[in-house]
Amino acid sequence: MKVQSIESHEQNNMDMEGASQVKMRMLIGPQEKASNFHMRHFEVGPEGHTPSHTHDYEHEILVISGSGLAKSEQGDRSIAPGDVVFVPPDEKHQFVNTGDEPLRFICLIPAPSDSA
Amino acid sequence: MKVQSIESHEQNNMDMEGASQVKMRMLIGPQEKASNFHMRHFEVGPEGHTPSHTHDYEHEILVISGSGLAKSEQGDRSIAPGDVVFVPPDEKHQFVNTGDEPLRFICLIPAPSDSA
Repeated sequence: MKVQSIESHEQNNMDMEGASQVKMRMLIGPQEKASNFHMRHFEVGPEGHTPSHTHDYEHEILVISGSGLAKSEQGDRSIAPGDVVFVPPDEKHQFVNTGDEPLRFICLIPAPSDSA
Repeated sequence: MKVQSIESHEQNNMDMEGASQVKMRMLIGPQEKASNFHMRHFEVGPEGHTPSHTHDYEHEILVISGSGLAKSEQGDRSIAPGDVVFVPPDEKHQFVNTGDEPLRFICLIPAPSDSA
């Protein structure tokens, strides 16, 4: 069993095209031999945003701190700590920090087939 | 896209043998047609605990509030808000509330094969 604080995981800038002010931590992934799904931590700085994109896998998200918008083809939704977000496969989505503090959330995805 | 607070999800007592003072919310599951993995919310009351048990699937956990112990065959580990816990398949585990406040955490599992 692994027990480890979020903060003790290495944090890296996310260089993906369309991302601004986004940092990521892999909380549970290949290192833990998590073969089904991976837990990541995202921190989006003030005025930052994740890419507006689409992919064939889902996101399961829990907002930890900060405030922002979850944008999709259905419109913009406010997000705040304690909000649960499910993005189905193939739905365009983007997360935007609209506050003065970092927007932090965990985001789980199916384990990529080349990860384990 | 679904955006919904933890608290707005129905909470039910967990009647599983060996569980004491445990309540569960299904945050992302069959209702969202989440076919790969499910996000659940657990609340363990003071002096309560989850069952001490083993199963062939993993847990991916984030502690939200409260304090307690994560017990496994490797010993007892303290858990606090912001702690990430990975329980590999087939490892015996139990979560015990050792504080005066509810111990709350999210716990993700692979989607049961009969759930979707």
